[in-house]
Formats: sequence, C-alpha cells, structure tokens
Amino acid sequence: MASEYGTALRISVFGQSHGAAIGVVMDGLPAGEPIDLEALNGFLDRRRPGKDALSTQRKETDLPKILSGLRDGVTCGSPLCAVIENQDQHSGDYRNLADCPRPGHADFTAWAKWGAEVDMRGGGHFSGRLTAPLCIAGGIALQILARRGISVGAHLWSVGAENDLPFPVFPTPELLSLPGTKSFPVLDDARGERMQHVILSAAQEGDSVGGIVECAAVGLPAGLGEPMFDGLENRLAATLFGIPAVKGLEFGEGFGAAALRGSENNDPFCVRNGHVETVSNHCGGILGGIATGMPLTFRIAFKPTPSIAKPQQSVSLSRMEPEELTIRGRHDPCIAHRAIPVVEAVAATVLLDLILEEHFYGTV
Amino acid sequence: MASEYGTALRISVFGQSHGAAIGVVMDGLPAGEPIDLEALNGFLDRRRPGKDALSTQRKETDLPKILSGLRDGVTCGSPLCAVIENQDQHSGDYRNLADCPRPGHADFTAWAKWGAEVDMRGGGHFSGRLTAPLCIAGGIALQILARRGISVGAHLWSVGAENDLPFPVFPTPELLSLPGTKSFPVLDDARGERMQHVILSAAQEGDSVGGIVECAAVGLPAGLGEPMFDGLENRLAATLFGIPAVKGLEFGEGFGAAALRGSENNDPFCVRNGHVETVSNHCGGILGGIATGMPLTFRIAFKPTPSIAKPQQSVSLSRMEPEELTIRGRHDPCIAHRAIPVVEAVAATVLLDLILEEHFYGTV
Amino acid sequence: MASEYGTALRISVFGQSHGAAIGVVMDGLPAGEPIDLEALNGFLDRRRPGKDALSTQRKETDLPKILSGLRDGVTCGSPLCAVIENQDQHSGDYRNLADCPRPGHADFTAWAKWGAEVDMRGGGHFSGRLTAPLCIAGGIALQILARRGISVGAHLWSVGAENDLPFPVFPTPELLSLPGTKSFPVLDDARGERMQHVILSAAQEGDSVGGIVECAAVGLPAGLGEPMFDGLENRLAATLFGIPAVKGLEFGEGFGAAALRGSENNDPFCVRNGHVETVSNHCGGILGGIATGMPLTFRIAFKPTPSIAKPQQSVSLSRMEPEELTIRGRHDPCIAHRAIPVVEAVAATVLLDLILEEHFYGTV
Amino acid sequence: MASEYGTALRISVFGQSHGAAIGVVMDGLPAGEPIDLEALNGFLDRRRPGKDALSTQRKETDLPKILSGLRDGVTCGSPLCAVIENQDQHSGDYRNLADCPRPGHADFTAWAKWGAEVDMRGGGHFSGRLTAPLCIAGGIALQILARRGISVGAHLWSVGAENDLPFPVFPTPELLSLPGTKSFPVLDDARGERMQHVILSAAQEGDSVGGIVECAAVGLPAGLGEPMFDGLENRLAATLFGIPAVKGLEFGEGFGAAALRGSENNDPFCVRNGHVETVSNHCGGILGGIATGMPLTFRIAFKPTPSIAKPQQSVSLSRMEPEELTIRGRHDPCIAHRAIPVVEAVAATVLLDLILEEHFYGTV
Repeated sequence: MASEYGTALRISVFGQSHGAAIGVVMDGLPAGEPIDLEALNGFLDRRRPGKDALSTQRKETDLPKILSGLRDGVTCGSPLCAVIENQDQHSGDYRNLADCPRPGHADFTAWAKWGAEVDMRGGGHFSGRLTAPLCIAGGIALQILARRGISVGAHLWSVGAENDLPFPVFPTPELLSLPGTKSFPVLDDARGERMQHVILSAAQEGDSVGGIVECAAVGLPAGLGEPMFDGLENRLAATLFGIPAVKGLEFGEGFGAAALRGSENNDPFCVRNGHVETVSNHCGGILGGIATGMPLTFRIAFKPTPSIAKPQQSVSLSRMEPEELTIRGRHDPCIAHRAIPVVEAVAATVLLDLILEEHFYGTV
Repeated sequence: MASEYGTALRISVFGQSHGAAIGVVMDGLPAGEPIDLEALNGFLDRRRPGKDALSTQRKETDLPKILSGLRDGVTCGSPLCAVIENQDQHSGDYRNLADCPRPGHADFTAWAKWGAEVDMRGGGHFSGRLTAPLCIAGGIALQILARRGISVGAHLWSVGAENDLPFPVFPTPELLSLPGTKSFPVLDDARGERMQHVILSAAQEGDSVGGIVECAAVGLPAGLGEPMFDGLENRLAATLFGIPAVKGLEFGEGFGAAALRGSENNDPFCVRNGHVETVSNHCGGILGGIATGMPLTFRIAFKPTPSIAKPQQSVSLSRMEPEELTIRGRHDPCIAHRAIPVVEAVAATVLLDLILEEHFYGTV
Repeated sequence: MASEYGTALRISVFGQSHGAAIGVVMDGLPAGEPIDLEALNGFLDRRRPGKDALSTQRKETDLPKILSGLRDGVTCGSPLCAVIENQDQHSGDYRNLADCPRPGHADFTAWAKWGAEVDMRGGGHFSGRLTAPLCIAGGIALQILARRGISVGAHLWSVGAENDLPFPVFPTPELLSLPGTKSFPVLDDARGERMQHVILSAAQEGDSVGGIVECAAVGLPAGLGEPMFDGLENRLAATLFGIPAVKGLEFGEGFGAAALRGSENNDPFCVRNGHVETVSNHCGGILGGIATGMPLTFRIAFKPTPSIAKPQQSVSLSRMEPEELTIRGRHDPCIAHRAIPVVEAVAATVLLDLILEEHFYGTV
Repeated sequence: MASEYGTALRISVFGQSHGAAIGVVMDGLPAGEPIDLEALNGFLDRRRPGKDALSTQRKETDLPKILSGLRDGVTCGSPLCAVIENQDQHSGDYRNLADCPRPGHADFTAWAKWGAEVDMRGGGHFSGRLTAPLCIAGGIALQILARRGISVGAHLWSVGAENDLPFPVFPTPELLSLPGTKSFPVLDDARGERMQHVILSAAQEGDSVGGIVECAAVGLPAGLGEPMFDGLENRLAATLFGIPAVKGLEFGEGFGAAALRGSENNDPFCVRNGHVETVSNHCGGILGGIATGMPLTFRIAFKPTPSIAKPQQSVSLSRMEPEELTIRGRHDPCIAHRAIPVVEAVAATVLLDLILEEHFYGTV
C-alpha cells in the first residue's frame, strides 16, 4: 500500500496538503517509552518552511496533537496517532494547473493513472507536506533509538557543484547532530555559504537546484539486518525512495566503489577493545545486508524542485495541444536542505523497525 | 522474509551453493502463458561462468527442471517451481575460512548474527549462485512481458575508469537486447575491449574490479506504479539491492540531477501520435513513483568482487587476534558483466508483479 | 501487525478507550466515491450503547470527524482518516483491577506478555470501544459495495437457548437490511422478545450471556476469492476473530455439514436466467475459497461478556495468592446483539478489499 | 498469495496432483535444528491413503527429498525445500469432468474465475494432494516445537452422528500423541469402531460423510500471540481454513459458549506451582488472542467429501443445460480422519511462526 511501510513497526501516513489535517499512525511501538514532546517539536521545526529566502514562504506551525498511544507521556502499546491541522491553505494557486501538467511533477502520471476526475495536484500522495507526519514518526523513533545508544544524523553534502566536507570515517554522535543545530545544515560553514549562494542564485533566476544529502547512523549492533531481499540496504532503499524528489541512493563508497579494486574497497578486519571492527568503512557499515557495527553511511540525491517560475513547455490534456505553462505560488528553490530531517526520520523508523523485528535489546 | 519478494507475483528462491539443488517458486503467475524453455535456457546461459578468463572457472550447466506450474508447456495457474541440481561442488575450498572472515564478505556479519555454529561461507543466502534461480524467474517474466510489448535490456556501463556508450534517450527493443547477444555485453565493442582489459589486468594482479550496469525498459504503460512507498523506484530498489555486491542505484539522471537546475532537469511535455510524451527523459520514465510511458532507466553500481587472491588483513574469530588471510578457490575478477542478466531478470519480475497487481492489460 | 488488516484496502485502527480519541485510517479506497456521512452516522448509531437496559449505560455520541481522504464529500484517493473524540471516560472504574485479573478477560495474558508496567485494562487493543472505528470503515465500505449491487446484513441468531428464524436460502437485500432497522436486531419479533428476556434475566442476576450472529452477503460476483490460504473463508476468518469475544465461525452448514452425507451437503447445479447457479446453498456461497455467486453465509459465536457483577475467583498478581474479585462499572449483559453492525462492518471491509485486489468491476 | 502463509516462518507449497512433483519451501527456519527424517516420514505416513477401505485406493509413497536447507541433517538457515515426486497419476479419470462441474467442488468457481481454458480439476490449488507438503512443513515444525516442550495432537471427534470421547481439560503430551499411533485416530476404540462403521456404510452406498477433528496444543508459553487481528485465533483460522473441505472452526467452548452464562464460561484463576493458571479452560487457552499457558484447544469441521459415486445433478458449461454427472475414480468416503495429521501440521507451523516472530525461547 502506497502510504504505509514497516514490518514490526508500521508507519501509515495520511492527509492532503489542502485538506483538514495530516497525520501518522505508528503501530508496533514498544510500550513504556517516554516521549519528549518538546524535543519532538524541536525536531519538526527543522523541516518547517518559511524561515528565510532559501525556502517557500508558506507558513506551517505544525504543532502535532497526539490522539492515542500515550498515557501520561509514555507509550502504552496501542497505536500512536498524531495529527497536524492544516492552517495555511492556498488551493487556488493550483487551479490553473488542472489541465496542464507541470514538467517534473506527478500531475501527468496521476492523470494517466486515475484520469481527469482525480485531482492530485498540490496535495495528496505527492505533496512534500506529507513529510511532516514522517518527521513525527521519525522524531519519536530517534528518541527511542537514542536510549539504545543509536544516533542518526545527516547534512547537506552538495548543492549544484558546491560541496560540504564529508563526515569523518568514524563520526561521533555529537558530530552527527551538529548540522541539525544550524540554520543551514552543513559541517563547514564557509562551504555552506557558497552552497546557499547557489540556491539563492537559482531562486533569483526563477529556477531551482538539486542536492545530495549524506546520512550516517552510529551505535547499530553488528548483526542487524537480513540477507538477500530483507537487508539494511533493501529496507532503507524501499522507504527512502518514498521521499519526494529522491532519484539516487548509494551506501558507503556507492558508485565510487565501482571504480575501485577489491584490494582498495575491502575493509580489513582488526580487533579493537575486544571487538572485531574494520579499519576502514568503504562498505558503509553493511556486508551482505547486515550491519557490521561500524557507522552506517549513505548518500541520497534530490533532483531540483520541479516547480519553477520560468515558463515551461507543457500540453493541454483536454485539447492535446502544446501549451506554455507558468507556475505561480510559493515554492522551494531547493528541497535538499529541508529534506535533511526527513532523511534522518525515515532512516530512524526503518532502523527501529528492524531492531524491534529482530528483538535486539530484548525489551525494546 | 529474506528469500522472498513480490506482491501479486511472489518469488521465493532457495538453495545453498554447496547443497543438493537450488531453485525458485513463482506464485501468482497468470495462467495460459506458454513458456519457451529453450529461450529460457538461452537466457540462463548469459550468466553462466566458466566461459573465459573474465570469470570464475567454476562450471555450471544450470539446466533447470520445471517441477510444477506448467501443463503442456503452458502456465496452469499453480505455483511454478524450477530447480537446478548442483553438480560442481568444491566445498573444501572454503574450509580454511571458518575462523577467519573474508574482508568485504558477509562472513563476519553472519557470525555476528548467528554465531559460530552457523556456517554461511561459500553458500547460503550470500552466494552469487542464488542469482541463477532469480534468472529463471526473470527469464520467464521477460517472456510474459514481451507478449505485452515490454522489453528490458542492460549493458555494462563502466568497469573501473572505462565506459561504454550510454543507451540513447529513446532506445528500441532491438537495441536493448543487443548487448545480451555478445560475449561481452556492451554497446560499443572498441570500448568493450578496453573494459575487458581492465578486468584482465585486475585478475592478473590477483585483484578484482567493480562496475556499473545501465538498464532500461521500454513499452511500460503510463500510470504503472503507486505513489509514496510503493512506487516503481521503491519496488525496484527494494529488490535490486538484493543482488550481491550492489552498493548504489540511481534512476534517470540520478546523482547527476543533483547538480542540475530545475529548468534543465524537468522534461517538457509534448504531444506525439496523439499521446502525451516527454521531449527528454531526465526523470528515467518515472514521476511521483509512476511510469510516464517513456523508457524506464536506471544505473546500478557493483563493488569489486571481495574474494581476491592477494593476502588480506583479517582476524581469527576464536582467538580474537589479527591473522593474514589468503583466499584460494575460483573467483570472478569482476561480477558486473555477469550480473547483467540478473539485473534484467530482477527488473522484469518487479515490473511483471506490478502489472499483475494493478491489472494492466486485463487478462495478463 | 495487531491493529491492521487488508491487502488492497488497508484498515488501521487506533485509540484507547480512555485516551483522547479513537479512529481509523483506510488506505486504498478507490477515488471518486461519494460518502453519505448521514447514512454513515446512522450505521454507527446501531452499535452505540446506552440506549436501553440491554446494554451498558456508558454514553457515546461517536460522531466521527473525517480528517482526510474526502474532497467535497467524495473520496480523493488519499488515505481516509476518521476520528471520534472520547467524551465519557471513567478510567477510575478500572483502578482496582490493576493487580487482580478479570476471569475471561485479557488482563492476565497482557500481564504475561508485557509485564505489570503496561496497563491494558479497560482500554487499548482489547477494548470493545475500538469496534467503533471498525464500524466507520465498514459503513464506508458498505456504501461502496452497495453501488456494485452487494448487500451485507446480519441478525441475532441466538442468545442462550433462544433462537431467531434463519435467513431464507436466497434472501433479498431488503430482508438483509431489515434487522438493522429494529431496536432488537432479529427477523422474528416474538422470538426476539424471548431472546431479550434471556438477556435481561442474566443482567438481573449480575451475570451475562453469549449469542450467535448470522450474517449473509448477496450480490457477490462468482469467482471472487483465491484458493488455499487466500480464500473468502481465510480472509473473513482472519479478521472476524479480531472482534472481541468471538470464539467460533462457520460457513454455510458449517459444523452441521460434518453430520451430513455428501449427497445431502453437495449443492446441485442448475441454469437460471442463463447463469449457473446452485439449487441449494449448503456451502454458504463458497467452493474452494471462491464465491459461487450465491449468498455468502456464515455464523459467528460470541462468548458471554466476561465482565459480570457476580464475585469471581481470581488471584493477586503481586502476592501470587487467591483473591475474590468484584467488578464494578457499567457492562453489557450481552455483546452479541450490539456486535451485529460490527460483524457487517468487518465483513464489508474484507469483501471490498478482495474486490479491489482482484479488480472486479474495473473502476471500483 | 494463495499458496503461502506465515510471517517469520514462510510456508510456500507448490505442485499439481497430476504434475511432476509437489513440494514446499520453508523460509525462516531457525538454524541449528536437527531434523529426524525417519520420524518425519513416519508422520507423513499417517496421511497416506490406500491403507484400507476407509480411504481412496490411490497409492502414494510420498518419500520426500530435501533439496536445500539442511547440512548434515541440521537446518543451516537457508530456506528448506522438500519435494515429493508424483508417481501414481490417473489424470484420465478427470477427463469427463471438463465441461460438467462436480457439485461441492471448486470446478465451477475455478471456471467462473479463470475461464474454460484453465483446467483445475483433479489437481492444482484445490487438490487434497497438496496437504502432503503441508505435512512435511508441519512434521518439521513439530520436531522443533517438541524441543521447546510444545506438543500438538488431534483426534477424530465425530463422524456423522457418532462421537469419540473429548480430550480431558488438561491432557498430557502422551495422550495428545496417542490417537496418531492408531490405525483409526480416536481416543476410545469402541467408539472408533462405530465411527468406522459410519464411514463404511456411506462408502457402500456410493456416498460420503463429514466429520469433526479436535486438536490441542500443550506447553505454549503464556503471552504468545498478539491482540486484535494478529491473535492466535486469527492466525490459526486464516491458515486452517486453507485445508480443503473445512467449513467451521471453534476455540475452547466455541459455539457452545454462546449458550452459557458468563459465570459458567469464565475460567477462574488460581495459583499452581507458583504460576497463575486457570481452574477450567473454557476459553481454549486463549484470552484476547494471547495464550494463557493452558492447553490451546479447537475443533474444526470437515464437510463430506464432495466426490461421490452417486449420480448428481450438474450442468454442461458449454451448452448451459442440465446434465447428470457420475464421478468415476477413487475417492475418500471421509476426509476427516485422514486430515488429522494435516490439522496438526498446520497448527504446528502457525505456532512455530508466532514463536519465532515474537522471539520466545531466545535462540529458537
């Protein structure tokens, strides 16, 4: 089903961008977990738009309301449902798009699938707005993972041709959480300045730009994951490609590994503190779909936001004729930097799901 | 469920590299489909090793035996089970690895997960040998897809630093099937010579090398796929990462899209022959998880084969001490070119599954 | 996952009896279906308690609020979420049960499963209150089924030793809906009087009584359902046993068929109006898991409500000693007659799920 | 997925009655479990037909061949595939049925579903022959359960109007296994004589008769199972209704509970040997879907074998006219007594699946 994922922990998101509310149901959360709602709200704040010229001016307060699953602030074993009421709706902005699909958007494929009577534009399953309930689920998962010593963090690796520094091979939890504390989520602020300039330049030209996010998780137990079709890579990929605009995913060296020799890419084993570890981490913490216990690392590519102010070539679906399209409304010149908490959130829910399914940490 | 995938069409592979037989069960095949066993065998022949110095000298005849699911050569609606008997077993080759995990292999993670008593080396869920039953399933799926006008083809895009030419933006079915007819599956034979040289050089040095495969499918109906977590990208990614040694996946422009402007990456719409099509295909035939009807394109990165002849640094798991490891036996200096039919096979089963689930073509 | 079911149509319920709200998410509803909220409310009204001495005096207004999935009263393809706010909470009533499990309830098994710190009593997954969101889902499914000519209806077949008349072999849609229009849902009102008397007698003695519900569906297309583990019986059984207090289920003649000869139980075929039909319907409209097109019929047994006023023998879980238990609070002397819309609702969602999955009626 | 079931342990059966072989794949078996193939074969022997006049004279030797999943007789973590070659095929016997559906069989519903070109008769998904691979899976599951102190046993509770004695409230493992050691699987042999007489009488008249099987499992840990839609009853029901000819299922008192008062049906708690137990077991060892730790008990109703020698009224599907049908070939006059190991087998796989999923017994 399109709106759900997970095995032991089921995440089900609902809502339309321009409906009454959006939300998420989490089924399978362990009982007895205190949830810090203030910290959750702080996490949600990281994906909120409208903070500066780098993102859309659409306002969202996004205060989630927990309808079930908590008793006195502690998970009680029942499914947790959280909703966010929609407040700032401008559905009119999408009115002129009804007959003319936006290039790079799902307007056309939705029309091909469901026909003209189903209007999916500006909302529904294709809206970036549904990443807000994903962040609620992820923010809760991150708190539960943290109590088991697992941290997840991401930063903006590149925008256009400008790059941040990479995470070190063995990052600390503190370093992983550092980018999320900044207004622009990078490791190196000088590089971040250049990356922001790329975004602002695109915005000024009525255009947009893509970017790459690097994410890492530390503290995973060696042995987490299953071989073949149920490994860490399979599970993460199946879900991460559900984030709007994602077009590529690589673990460890990823595409770079294809250019290496085996003697360069293999990670030699060593013994550290009585544990088997690897000297390097080209494999991104995963061998045969299963965690090595070293940092899990991946990079994920976001295409440029398809909604741009520049006129574009489209067609009239009713008349089957060419038509020039100009999109109005408020749009992000880049989605990658706002997607960072979403990437962390999705990764956290997938990792927690696996930990619950495989009963790591016993009473988790 | 490590060994299974699919929704309407369930694929379940079984077998160990050094057991009695390997095989696959396909549950959900449409009834009434004639299966050309000779053509199937020709397809399987493409992944067979031992043909030249570019691959392991292990012999596999791999003639599959259909145990159920066919009546007079036509699918009958019951699950189809096909097996391949194992003939050329050299389990002794792996004996000295029991205590000393091979770098880049799942030996260590299997040990961390299941403990010392479970011996997964040289077989089981981590064996490339299990890609043979995947090819049986895929070979059957390809025949059924072809009857609906859908073709899937792949070629070796790169090895080390050497590249093939890319598929054209709108490839014909004939071009897609061309590389598979060659002993070395590329579009441009001169470039293929250089790529083979890279593989042979690595082999001569007791080393291995990685590669990238480009795959495309033409003839998909616009509208195939579901939004969010059940789209074409999600389904393909979840399964393709189950092929051993895959570390990266990108659709359309993929990681390259991250460096583009929206005005460059968006594919303008046009009307051709009464249908809405796109002028370019940067999106790889997928918008919002749903097929545009244009070619589906993706690239998939294979790491260098981890089994190399060069001595490597490992540890003794029983003594928790460093140990130098030298791997004997027969190994592929590169896995990417042999993986091409596997990529086609997995893609075909995922596409057929979606077509059956969504009831495209009615009686399929 | 405990709180979810369905394949093409996923139903996910959430909420605790004594939390902020309860609700349901339906993922996979077809787009373009008008939903009559007034009719839905009328359906929900049938399971509401507090109407007379035959049920608990707990008041529930149960007006559902649709948070997503509708646009102008019509399904839009996005998941539909509906919630009911909890208004009449008496959590204090359950306080004295914390250490002393109620016989016949899940108090003890929840304690055995999750330990003392998880308090499941009077709420959570074991609460009859969660049948309200099931009825929302079912009420919506019934409206969509009705547009395809499918009707589902149930009546109270027995209470204690008193019986209603059975449905005729080939009931009309009108007859199926008749019991639901009555304050006591039976076919024969004189027999209903005697059945009510059984309930009231039990209530006056501080006791409770069980009952059996008979349900039928007409208008199903022949061919609906899958063989083996995915048939109509499997799907219905898997879900119907999720209704609290259900302990038995039989299709057609059911247990009675075990006492028949084949020549008595087999339903002879005939041709009526150009269609193959059966003369009788001992099989309950299902052969090999697949609908015959004749009425689907089943009976479902509800145990007596375990919460009774009479003192009962229990134990103190903390002291591991016998303890006499007296349950206070408001309880149903019989649950079977209130469960009738729940049975209809669950059956409707399962049937709609199958119809969507198998693409009967094309655009459904 | 008609041919598969299970969550942590996936069971996938394949084969046609009149094809080359039938078999089963078990994915998710724990590694390190020795499998006694002789004991497995003894278990399979219990469902073999052709032993006396009480069953069909069709001969099946049914010696299973393990293709994968074992190493030196011990499970190795890979999927286990076992096949049985078909030897005694009389497909001609079914030839005259092609146009004339057998009453009580799936001939008609298969025709309605798949059309005339798919011939499902005498084989495929509707064949009782596929219960043989189910018994392989179940026989293996029973051995693994036995090592955790869990025993499953069943006996023929009734045939026509004749009854066996019931299991005592708290049966020993020895008593559970007793009926399976007899040529006619009952507790009381004198009653068994009368039951056999009922079967033989029906056979002599060219007719058949139904029966009820009672099954129990002892040694289950309290706390096994999940609430709502994933409880013991849901899981068992979803799978048990996949056994051919099953039309009813009840747990504990089942339908009888509907006629009881709460004070009669509730099981009082007591403390025995430091554990909380119940004095009686009307609930069949399940409260709220979760095991109480007391014996799990259920009864399952089998309809009379639909294939009878007596002429029956059917129709010609091609001419849409009435036609009298006489079925030739070898058929069971009663299926219930031969189904007893099948019921045990299915119950065992479902219970083992739950134990693996919920990680009871740690290393299981």
